[in-house]
Amino acid sequence: MDGWLLGALAEDIGGGDVTTECLAGKADYARVDWTAKSSLVVCGLPVCFRTFELLSKECSALFMAQEGTRAEPGQVVLSLAGPAGALLSGERVALNIAQHLSGVATSTARFVAAVEGTGARIAATRKTIPYNRRLEKYAVTVGGGVPHRYGLDDGVLIKDNHIALAGSITQAVQRARSLAHHLLKIEVEVENMGQAEEAVKAGADLLLLDNMTLDMLREAVKTFKGKVILEASGNVTIDVVRSIAETGVDIISTGAITHSVIAADVSARLALASRPEAGKE
Amino acid sequence: MDGWLLGALAEDIGGGDVTTECLAGKADYARVDWTAKSSLVVCGLPVCFRTFELLSKECSALFMAQEGTRAEPGQVVLSLAGPAGALLSGERVALNIAQHLSGVATSTARFVAAVEGTGARIAATRKTIPYNRRLEKYAVTVGGGVPHRYGLDDGVLIKDNHIALAGSITQAVQRARSLAHHLLKIEVEVENMGQAEEAVKAGADLLLLDNMTLDMLREAVKTFKGKVILEASGNVTIDVVRSIAETGVDIISTGAITHSVIAADVSARLALASRPEAGKE
Amino acid sequence: MDGWLLGALAEDIGGGDVTTECLAGKADYARVDWTAKSSLVVCGLPVCFRTFELLSKECSALFMAQEGTRAEPGQVVLSLAGPAGALLSGERVALNIAQHLSGVATSTARFVAAVEGTGARIAATRKTIPYNRRLEKYAVTVGGGVPHRYGLDDGVLIKDNHIALAGSITQAVQRARSLAHHLLKIEVEVENMGQAEEAVKAGADLLLLDNMTLDMLREAVKTFKGKVILEASGNVTIDVVRSIAETGVDIISTGAITHSVIAADVSARLALASRPEAGKE
Amino acid sequence: MDGWLLGALAEDIGGGDVTTECLAGKADYARVDWTAKSSLVVCGLPVCFRTFELLSKECSALFMAQEGTRAEPGQVVLSLAGPAGALLSGERVALNIAQHLSGVATSTARFVAAVEGTGARIAATRKTIPYNRRLEKYAVTVGGGVPHRYGLDDGVLIKDNHIALAGSITQAVQRARSLAHHLLKIEVEVENMGQAEEAVKAGADLLLLDNMTLDMLREAVKTFKGKVILEASGNVTIDVVRSIAETGVDIISTGAITHSVIAADVSARLALASRPEAGKE
Amino acid sequence: MDGWLLGALAEDIGGGDVTTECLAGKADYARVDWTAKSSLVVCGLPVCFRTFELLSKECSALFMAQEGTRAEPGQVVLSLAGPAGALLSGERVALNIAQHLSGVATSTARFVAAVEGTGARIAATRKTIPYNRRLEKYAVTVGGGVPHRYGLDDGVLIKDNHIALAGSITQAVQRARSLAHHLLKIEVEVENMGQAEEAVKAGADLLLLDNMTLDMLREAVKTFKGKVILEASGNVTIDVVRSIAETGVDIISTGAITHSVIAADVSARLALASRPEAGKE
Amino acid sequence: MDGWLLGALAEDIGGGDVTTECLAGKADYARVDWTAKSSLVVCGLPVCFRTFELLSKECSALFMAQEGTRAEPGQVVLSLAGPAGALLSGERVALNIAQHLSGVATSTARFVAAVEGTGARIAATRKTIPYNRRLEKYAVTVGGGVPHRYGLDDGVLIKDNHIALAGSITQAVQRARSLAHHLLKIEVEVENMGQAEEAVKAGADLLLLDNMTLDMLREAVKTFKGKVILEASGNVTIDVVRSIAETGVDIISTGAITHSVIAADVSARLALASRPEAGKE
Repeated sequence: MDGWLLGALAEDIGGGDVTTECLAGKADYARVDWTAKSSLVVCGLPVCFRTFELLSKECSALFMAQEGTRAEPGQVVLSLAGPAGALLSGERVALNIAQHLSGVATSTARFVAAVEGTGARIAATRKTIPYNRRLEKYAVTVGGGVPHRYGLDDGVLIKDNHIALAGSITQAVQRARSLAHHLLKIEVEVENMGQAEEAVKAGADLLLLDNMTLDMLREAVKTFKGKVILEASGNVTIDVVRSIAETGVDIISTGAITHSVIAADVSARLALASRPEAGKE
Repeated sequence: MDGWLLGALAEDIGGGDVTTECLAGKADYARVDWTAKSSLVVCGLPVCFRTFELLSKECSALFMAQEGTRAEPGQVVLSLAGPAGALLSGERVALNIAQHLSGVATSTARFVAAVEGTGARIAATRKTIPYNRRLEKYAVTVGGGVPHRYGLDDGVLIKDNHIALAGSITQAVQRARSLAHHLLKIEVEVENMGQAEEAVKAGADLLLLDNMTLDMLREAVKTFKGKVILEASGNVTIDVVRSIAETGVDIISTGAITHSVIAADVSARLALASRPEAGKE
Repeated sequence: MDGWLLGALAEDIGGGDVTTECLAGKADYARVDWTAKSSLVVCGLPVCFRTFELLSKECSALFMAQEGTRAEPGQVVLSLAGPAGALLSGERVALNIAQHLSGVATSTARFVAAVEGTGARIAATRKTIPYNRRLEKYAVTVGGGVPHRYGLDDGVLIKDNHIALAGSITQAVQRARSLAHHLLKIEVEVENMGQAEEAVKAGADLLLLDNMTLDMLREAVKTFKGKVILEASGNVTIDVVRSIAETGVDIISTGAITHSVIAADVSARLALASRPEAGKE
Repeated sequence: MDGWLLGALAEDIGGGDVTTECLAGKADYARVDWTAKSSLVVCGLPVCFRTFELLSKECSALFMAQEGTRAEPGQVVLSLAGPAGALLSGERVALNIAQHLSGVATSTARFVAAVEGTGARIAATRKTIPYNRRLEKYAVTVGGGVPHRYGLDDGVLIKDNHIALAGSITQAVQRARSLAHHLLKIEVEVENMGQAEEAVKAGADLLLLDNMTLDMLREAVKTFKGKVILEASGNVTIDVVRSIAETGVDIISTGAITHSVIAADVSARLALASRPEAGKE
Repeated sequence: MDGWLLGALAEDIGGGDVTTECLAGKADYARVDWTAKSSLVVCGLPVCFRTFELLSKECSALFMAQEGTRAEPGQVVLSLAGPAGALLSGERVALNIAQHLSGVATSTARFVAAVEGTGARIAATRKTIPYNRRLEKYAVTVGGGVPHRYGLDDGVLIKDNHIALAGSITQAVQRARSLAHHLLKIEVEVENMGQAEEAVKAGADLLLLDNMTLDMLREAVKTFKGKVILEASGNVTIDVVRSIAETGVDIISTGAITHSVIAADVSARLALASRPEAGKE
Repeated sequence: MDGWLLGALAEDIGGGDVTTECLAGKADYARVDWTAKSSLVVCGLPVCFRTFELLSKECSALFMAQEGTRAEPGQVVLSLAGPAGALLSGERVALNIAQHLSGVATSTARFVAAVEGTGARIAATRKTIPYNRRLEKYAVTVGGGVPHRYGLDDGVLIKDNHIALAGSITQAVQRARSLAHHLLKIEVEVENMGQAEEAVKAGADLLLLDNMTLDMLREAVKTFKGKVILEASGNVTIDVVRSIAETGVDIISTGAITHSVIAADVSARLALASRPEAGKE
């Protein structure tokens, strides 16, 4: 995480924070309150604080809201103290992280709430913003969803393009079974019942039911529920997600909760403060 | 750019693309068409192609749409050819880039169209997604906007918190003038006419008019236009941006075009193909 | 791979190959033959050649033996040509790789041969030499074995120490099931039939039968074969591996094929040669 | 060392230790004892402990055996305490290091014991496992041997292939003398007395007597001992090493102590424990 | 800074400080005094101390001279204490830094003193030693000068070659004005009054008066002073710098203060000392 | 070298060469001539060209002067062609390298000429500018000097501070002899004949005669010449170097040729040109 944060800081600070270097004295000490300006699911605050800590070990934080809780407009969610220079130079990077991750968590929570009681789980995909996947998957779990695989190396997901290469679903599954290591499950993307049957017969552990109608989903549930894990995907909007969930599928995955996120609104306000005495820290 | 792309690929591929390694033969060669599924401003395709090139030098591309042009649903924007393994392993990373950057460009273009004829320019901010700033700023220019400073090191922007540290706007500007190097301009964030006057008198080159009403903006324009560059910021939505522009400000900056972007929808479809003869390449 | 090889070269060459810099003229061109000095399963030659290519693009190779084939003493397995300086400076690194990987493949092949016809597969573990895991796992597959998980991130393997933390096998499996993503299988290390039954009941996908007697293994096979994958481990020597395989377990894993490998003996002999004409390359 | 260890940890942990993340609570604290399961020369324990420290600063260690001492089966050599998550996630990497380095030290000690009293020293070569040279050379010294040069940059060793390029031993030595910097000695690999005489006459500081018979070695010792340092190499097994040493050579070098090492057997057992009170640490 | 220093240490220490490893015991503790051997402006001591701290956290320092003050021959400027090994292994790197930076500061101070009272400021250029720019620019400010832009990314400076590409000064300035972001000023290199007038008319913020005679400089000052910033450059020696300053230009830039610096002479003397008691640190 | 050059380019270009990006069209092609403005020993041109090649593979070069030859003012030493953008963006970095390295070579050549015919060689020290040692040592050899050790890892040099730690010269040499590997020579810094005798008796291979008078040097030569290598050092100026050489010492080392170098003056002039036809390249 530190390496990632240092890269994010380098992207913003580059050769130096000219403004702050001109204006913040080395002895200036300050407090900063972060306030929610919209209703949001809090996410990423420990990471944000770490951003400041990497700029100065003297920074400290009071977490006024726990990860995953709801904050309403006007609510202070984080209270920071430290050298003014560090608080100013790290501000934008930290806020960008908080706003994006809280945006992901808030969006996820909406989908999770929509399917409440159905037993279906909301899952992320690999449709993430470059360099932000781990944190976005984390934010999805903070919002109540599940992460799905983290990359191409920790799960086998055979899509239509893979099937074209392998010749058939059966051949694709068999080849994957014999070549992938034995702790990985095999999921197959299918578009109709025929493909689904072939995949299950070939030994798939999961089916990715892609862009199916509610009727098709219901039939898939009737036939395969309990035998394999059923994941629905494709055109999953907040309006239809409950209908999909009520078909009985196990998992509903959607890229929208990571790739099309409205940033949560958080603002930071600084006030000069006196440095705590060394003996009391 | 290559280093950034390799990092993005590493994030997705990790220890290896298990599925593709199982299913794509080393000799398999394929073509892939990328099709717009929503109306979008094309952005990032050369970068996307480079992603595939980094996986295999054998990949080639036909750019069916130029950067910055509008593509409508169903339109093929990119046609790729190369080893099937490379085309599959790089697909998600490349699509994620295209969808995000085209999203930024499309969003920017909406704001730019809204202020057409007013003379105002739409500018990005530093409210970007970590590790994506350069590309997002590029996408803003592709969408018709201007980039603003790239980080804390290539411009002086004195905000309220900096002023608090320096004691007054006057002192802040003077200190920055004497300490920052002489090729950097100095911008000051102001909230009312009194602050604006102090800033200009102290020698500011630009004013960032933050969260001002249209009346306040008009007054600022009347007083300072031509003397300093006037930038309006704060609560800039697509609904109000034209009204702001019509006050006569030079620049309108908004974080929404980078931090709250709806991904443009682009899909990829692969078909096996025969490898071109070496002699003809 | 290139990055890894550059690191290996840096480890040996450091500030420069003093001897070769003194003695090899820039125009010197040479051929080098690699000869097996012991009976070995060939492994790693393309990687070895890449080592030389990274030192000079002018290097070329004839692969005289395919990966995974048996080479006998005296057999030339690789024939290199290129600038003498590159061939000399890369020699030790490339030979070290070939000797180690061929050693792993040769050792694996012995175990694989020993269990031939039983249906059991020989698997590697995470008991590898630091920085060499990917290549060692590759060498295991070249020798006829299977790789097992590549690290802590692409499979869940609950060992005794994990169980101690979780309180019980049941709790451990349930917690892993709900927290790990849904494309990962769950394996549980067990030492007796009671633990095995608890693990299977809790929903384990595989059992790691640790240090069990042949009788215990037979009982586990009788009870669980077909329901979960059975992996035997612990004190697996070449002398007992067939007996273990004949109990009917699916997989036998052993660290010895990666952590205690006798390097395969390969020698390199250089002869000056004339540089091929540019037009003919 | 930290950078190297972080790389080794990254190789194993990758995107995260899924099992431990599921099962170890953040507050879980544990003790782990490392026990020798075979007779071994202890080597690498401070490095192993550092592995855990890099995962958590709360980890602490009691070194129960000093580097270079002999440990017998059943003997506890290291006693660790710290957060359970860190102790579990770093376990395999640390054990892999300990087992390999203790294996090198143990193997070296056998050769050193075999030549005891002869005055000959056992030296390592550059036949090491990629990325492990510094540590393996360290383990050789812990086992009582000497390191020889660390790479191609801190010593001149002219081998047969170099001589072929230079035209003759005399020319090779002269060229090296005039081009290499003046703090480096020059060693020449020779296969017979004629070559040895030419090398010494040309000004070599050391002779590498390659694959010579005992008679040839004795003659070389009679002629050159005291004038140059004499190093014997080639087919050095534990059975013949004393005979070689008794010829009077100064140094006997062998790749076997680094490239063909049987891992020392060390096991780790964890027990939950209560966290020490902060005030008492 | 730490990353830069680690690279500098790696350049010198490489695989290890052989001499110190042989001769310094782990328990040896020492004191080292740094003494100026020539009259110099002190610069870089905190960076030098950090070099030692990176080798051992036990190192401590007494700064006997503040950055930017004048030290005379024989004056102790830094007093270090710490493990003898760290003090010896870091000595050359730290001294190299101190001697170079103090050399830059001393040289700059000479130019600054020469123009005292004229109002002109001495500026650095981009004519720096690779990898040392930030520190050299810092040393220039310590010597009383100003840094100028840090690289090609934080200022627009249009030189004759750029003008050739753009067609004319006017076109060059206009293009830069519309494409560079709005916080960067635009400077134009001119060689005569005609060019100067065109540049100012086109909207340049600064003029770089290159290799002009004193008469030409005076004319430029008469015409443009107060409208744009005037920077003189080219053949600026200590002998002529005051004459140039007296023409009334704002800034005089010279590469000599960074690219042709006489190292300041500083020596280090070590004495064994007793380690301070832990309780008293 | 590429890695080092990329770092040097990154230091200058940072986030982008704003000026060139604004003014150089992608199709602009140009020629650049580099002209010596002072009498200099040419050094570093291939490295300089590589700088441009890293920016664009289309760059090409005609080397008009060989490394180590003398160029007089007005002489064109390098003629470059390529995309205008690459030629402009890499210009300063490449010139900085050429000016510094040619400065080192020119300075070295002066010392070498001064001792011509005496048999003494001029050697560099470790008093180099951070991150530039390899290239500076290379420039010293281009100027006719010898490199001395490259760092702390490829030679043992026992200085007064080391002797203080070891207790005596004898103990220091003996300890180094037994611990350093056997391809490294041992040099001892001595200040008088008594120390010199002790060092030689203890087995030193070289003496570093530090700050000795000419009489002392003559005595050392009389006593030790031919037994050990004699290196003189300390206060070596161009005025006294011949007198020192005439005492008969083997090597004279001086930091001035690397740490206090007057940059050689080289200028670059660009002209637009037509791009060569692809078929003819």
